[in-house]
Amino acid sequence: MNYLKKLVWALICLFFSLSSFSQEHPSIMLSKQNIGALRKGVQTYALLKKSWKKIKSDADKAILEAIEVPVPKEAGGGKSHEQHKKNYSTMLSCGIAYQISGDQKYAAYVEQMLLKYAAEYEKWPLHPKRKEGHQGGRIFWQSLNDFVWQVYTIQSYDLVHDALSASNRKTIESKLFEPILKFFTVDCAGTFDKIHNHATWDVAAVGMTGYVINKPEYVQMALKGSAKDGKTGYLAQVDQLFSPDGYYTEGPYYQRYALLPFILFAKTINNYQPELKIFQYRDQLLAKAIQTSLQLTYTDGTFFPINDAIKGKTYESSELVYGVDIAYADINASPDLLDIAAKQGEVVVSDAGLKIAKDLSEGRSKPFSYQSQLIKDGASGKEGGLGIFRSGSNEDQQAVVLKAASQGMGHGHFDRLNLLYYDNGVEIFPDYGSARFINIESKKGGDYLPENKTWAKQTIAHNTLTVDQTSNFKANADLAQQTAASVSYFKIDKDLQIFSADENHAYPGVRMNRTTALLKVKELQKPLLIDVFRVNSDKAHQYDLPFWYKGHLVDASPKIKGFTDQLKPLGSKYGYEHIWLNAEQAVPGKSGYLSILNNKRFYTVHFAADAPLSLKLLSLGANDPDLSLLESKAFMLSSTDSKDQLFFSITETHGQTNPVNETTTGASSQVTDLQVTANHPDRASLSFKVKGKTYQYQINYNNKENFIKIN
Amino acid sequence: MNYLKKLVWALICLFFSLSSFSQEHPSIMLSKQNIGALRKGVQTYALLKKSWKKIKSDADKAILEAIEVPVPKEAGGGKSHEQHKKNYSTMLSCGIAYQISGDQKYAAYVEQMLLKYAAEYEKWPLHPKRKEGHQGGRIFWQSLNDFVWQVYTIQSYDLVHDALSASNRKTIESKLFEPILKFFTVDCAGTFDKIHNHATWDVAAVGMTGYVINKPEYVQMALKGSAKDGKTGYLAQVDQLFSPDGYYTEGPYYQRYALLPFILFAKTINNYQPELKIFQYRDQLLAKAIQTSLQLTYTDGTFFPINDAIKGKTYESSELVYGVDIAYADINASPDLLDIAAKQGEVVVSDAGLKIAKDLSEGRSKPFSYQSQLIKDGASGKEGGLGIFRSGSNEDQQAVVLKAASQGMGHGHFDRLNLLYYDNGVEIFPDYGSARFINIESKKGGDYLPENKTWAKQTIAHNTLTVDQTSNFKANADLAQQTAASVSYFKIDKDLQIFSADENHAYPGVRMNRTTALLKVKELQKPLLIDVFRVNSDKAHQYDLPFWYKGHLVDASPKIKGFTDQLKPLGSKYGYEHIWLNAEQAVPGKSGYLSILNNKRFYTVHFAADAPLSLKLLSLGANDPDLSLLESKAFMLSSTDSKDQLFFSITETHGQTNPVNETTTGASSQVTDLQVTANHPDRASLSFKVKGKTYQYQINYNNKENFIKIN
Repeated sequence: MNYLKKLVWALICLFFSLSSFSQEHPSIMLSKQNIGALRKGVQTYALLKKSWKKIKSDADKAILEAIEVPVPKEAGGGKSHEQHKKNYSTMLSCGIAYQISGDQKYAAYVEQMLLKYAAEYEKWPLHPKRKEGHQGGRIFWQSLNDFVWQVYTIQSYDLVHDALSASNRKTIESKLFEPILKFFTVDCAGTFDKIHNHATWDVAAVGMTGYVINKPEYVQMALKGSAKDGKTGYLAQVDQLFSPDGYYTEGPYYQRYALLPFILFAKTINNYQPELKIFQYRDQLLAKAIQTSLQLTYTDGTFFPINDAIKGKTYESSELVYGVDIAYADINASPDLLDIAAKQGEVVVSDAGLKIAKDLSEGRSKPFSYQSQLIKDGASGKEGGLGIFRSGSNEDQQAVVLKAASQGMGHGHFDRLNLLYYDNGVEIFPDYGSARFINIESKKGGDYLPENKTWAKQTIAHNTLTVDQTSNFKANADLAQQTAASVSYFKIDKDLQIFSADENHAYPGVRMNRTTALLKVKELQKPLLIDVFRVNSDKAHQYDLPFWYKGHLVDASPKIKGFTDQLKPLGSKYGYEHIWLNAEQAVPGKSGYLSILNNKRFYTVHFAADAPLSLKLLSLGANDPDLSLLESKAFMLSSTDSKDQLFFSITETHGQTNPVNETTTGASSQVTDLQVTANHPDRASLSFKVKGKTYQYQINYNNKENFIKIN
Repeated sequence: MNYLKKLVWALICLFFSLSSFSQEHPSIMLSKQNIGALRKGVQTYALLKKSWKKIKSDADKAILEAIEVPVPKEAGGGKSHEQHKKNYSTMLSCGIAYQISGDQKYAAYVEQMLLKYAAEYEKWPLHPKRKEGHQGGRIFWQSLNDFVWQVYTIQSYDLVHDALSASNRKTIESKLFEPILKFFTVDCAGTFDKIHNHATWDVAAVGMTGYVINKPEYVQMALKGSAKDGKTGYLAQVDQLFSPDGYYTEGPYYQRYALLPFILFAKTINNYQPELKIFQYRDQLLAKAIQTSLQLTYTDGTFFPINDAIKGKTYESSELVYGVDIAYADINASPDLLDIAAKQGEVVVSDAGLKIAKDLSEGRSKPFSYQSQLIKDGASGKEGGLGIFRSGSNEDQQAVVLKAASQGMGHGHFDRLNLLYYDNGVEIFPDYGSARFINIESKKGGDYLPENKTWAKQTIAHNTLTVDQTSNFKANADLAQQTAASVSYFKIDKDLQIFSADENHAYPGVRMNRTTALLKVKELQKPLLIDVFRVNSDKAHQYDLPFWYKGHLVDASPKIKGFTDQLKPLGSKYGYEHIWLNAEQAVPGKSGYLSILNNKRFYTVHFAADAPLSLKLLSLGANDPDLSLLESKAFMLSSTDSKDQLFFSITETHGQTNPVNETTTGASSQVTDLQVTANHPDRASLSFKVKGKTYQYQINYNNKENFIKIN
């Protein structure tokens, strides 16, 4: 019996040891067996050296300051909020500094801080403040911040683990991390089991903690949801939050943000349970999501600012530093990622960062390979998508973005069939992004401004069609969320890139198609941007197609006559109330052009239509008493009383000015004679001339074998 | 007798050979004895190599084309005009290419072209077109272009001289250059004897030609005027067109342009007659003029755009490439000029360029030394001047420009006591420059627009005081030319830079003083820009003090309430008709502030006055039917009914935002409680607090020993 008892116990231990995790630390971004190489690397490779110098400087500064773990009190931006944010960041720097330098003082700092948290955490009730509409945390006013705190903190703990006494480890685990796990999974169960980016931070925090402090139960829950049935949890989120192309429905700005917990947790999973092959999951979905994030930038590194985006955000943001490092080191060492890493100017001081910095120093980098591509939206890839055209080198690239996707949830804009154009390093036809001065206290505490709703989300704020001065779906987000635009054609050839999409739900009884191409003709150096926006309805409507542009208007036909002594708003709602009407005139012969000078290059937009048109010049700023709206201007093609209407435009990119030498070349446009010769249900026949040569341009909407015919 | 006759002849020859010039070619920018070194240099030193590559490429392209010497016909910008411009440029490239490569084909090209000109020139009458108000040329519609043509062409001839047959040389000299000399000195005598930049091109062309084809008579005339009495000619121009500080009264943009013939002719004089010590003339005036041109730029290389300036013009322009190369190689090899040369990215392929490129490659460069300085205006330095403050490194420099100079002739603006502020690589309080789209055909043929007169020149377009909605001198340039502002105080200390100037002529019965300082206080990182604009009159007036600014307004007190449903022009003349009034409000307590976010940094302008104030927000664009005016905006302090008024402002430069990390620091201004405690004829007593510490700031207008007292 004694023997049997012993055997049973031995089997039980074996079972548990099998289902528990290797307890070697560190084991997330840095791994124990690689520390020697990393210590050498920070002395050797420029980018790693620079990144380490910054971490060390942060850590050295931190350890001189008194440890402060205040009772949670203030809302976002307040003192206790900022202190707790700072704490997780300095603990991580000190954790890395300990591993690289071997100096105990850094570990001691993390240890002392964690002990202080452990002594306090259980006393803290739910945070006294609450972010409107968001679940409360205990350290912060919303639970999301608590999750983020723990994703960072568990990494610091992993880094200093071996330097801590067993009794202190026990205190920290039992008084801090275990209560946190309980809070995140029980109190925050509603979030934990959502398919949503807040839930990603929650499961990542829980799962990473589960691995590090060896609680397989929590890892299971993190991976498969609290019921462990796979209906929620991390894997379900990977399945449902991204499209098969790795696109996150809220758009590039939020895609970047959502990415970090996905890849940090994936990296942890891969270290602890390589047999799960998490990076291979769903056809390498995470690698695609990182790649797609990069493909959603212009060559200056900025994300395409569709939906509620902060402009000026680039792939230099820390989420993509992690993303690029892990993608290169752990998934696919594509040399063009080194180009991005070099432009980011830093790496994570980690195994992955070492590999990047080493390979960069060995000259293995290639220019990042921007692709013309269709990025499908929706978990199954059936909710439209973004079409992207690229032409030219990374130093001087034309890029066109066409949005025919789903609404993208609460941060989505009413911008079906929106078009953005970039060239020569700058925006030509921009997207306004969100109306928000992030972190500027005086502008509504840095939060979204009222104008985000009244202006930035409205259809007229975008380079697409507004019908009857009303936004898509009458600006009803719930309604908009129910349907998506559909991409009917996408094809990339050497000299012709084509995107065609339909939107038939945004306005009841109105069918819209936008068919846009980038066409290289041999007479001109730069491809032409050819845009055909067609709308059909049984009833007559007002159709407004604005092109918000950057630069200065230097020529136009018909000649513009700006209003001289008074400006009035363009309308009274759906964003029209924010627009000053600067000029308005009829377009004789239904065609004309405007030439814009932007960043020393000319852009001449030729246009034509098959029904009478008027041309309006617009600028932003009406009904804006707080002066919150940014300078913006547009020209707009309008027709007031058409059932069917076709707007045909060709944007020619040409010439240059040099203010230093005072020279101008190629200022004259070479495109002329735009005509709409037929507009039938199944085809549009158009023509134009380039340096006198006639091009016939026919769109066969129902013929995918011969969708665009040019001769 | 035979013997005597021979002796006389010998003496005569000796006399003439003494007064003739050494006929060694080339002998201007390139010299014969240095060709060997230069040929090696173009293979060795990066900057020279790059510059040579460009010249050679231009030359190689040129010699493939047919030589075209059309009969002069079109005005500026027209076909024959552009061809003749192109010809002088390609001849110079080919001349250099011949000397560097030794390949006869380049010399043959210049030879053939010059022979063609020689065959045609005498047939050409005065040009059939005439630029309004300008003397006509024969090759071009204005004689100025002919002078420029010859300054370039005589250099080409010098470069290929030795490759030409004696008979061809004779043809070219007798049929082209001699008739040109006659035309320039006889037909254009009026210009030749002016003290004016067109005359500089004329005398330089004549003098350089005189040296190269050995006509000492013409050299004498060029140096001392057609009467050879020194009242006109080159030396008189050096005496009178520049101030003792090397400032050219029309402003930096025209200074740059005027400089080239001065230094090219000086270089020629120095090579042929070093005994004249031309570079030492007038206390090294030419070196000062080059140095002053550089000092009139911000750290991004752009010239301060006062008066009729094209914005975006930088020291990369060819005039300053010549200027820097010659200043370094021939006058004073100051290592900080190498910094500028490196930023110019090119050198003249010449002896001077060789020296620059060599020294740069040897790592001798130092950062360009920007100086805080007073640059006096007027031939004798008594017509006011420009005050320039600098603070910080060339990577992040505050620069303040105060204009209290003379009118600056026809290109001057009515901007007495104007203030410009730069920081962090960008304009904060800009100057509009000229209203002109240079070389943009569709914008009035690239010439000055009507708005240059109605807007850009007017006082309200500048950061200075407008009285009774009327420009300085009622915008009468002749009247304005008669008097200058006067600088009453200028002092640069480590922590305090002060400039004080008076203008008592611009408005009859109105006395204006602006006293501006850049003050470093220990509580803050960046110096404060303290501006005290005082105006006194026996009668009540409307006083408007605008600050045209770049960036976005993010906070203000009083809180701004923009007009929501209508905009109207601010006035009806003197530029007011071009301004939209966006907001207007009383200023309770006579003080307030505005915070501007520009290029990720904050600028809070605190203001106070000793009489009731209103605050107006302005934007440009009213009465602009052609949409020619560029986006511009201002806030303006106004008082409508004061005799004496003092406008006190402090601009605090603080904090930063980082859209990539989404962090903001230092957004709160630390300056508070501005007060005007006394405003007496001889002193102004002001105070303010920084982080709660009170500063008393007293200006003692009549006490130069203790002009500003701070405690």
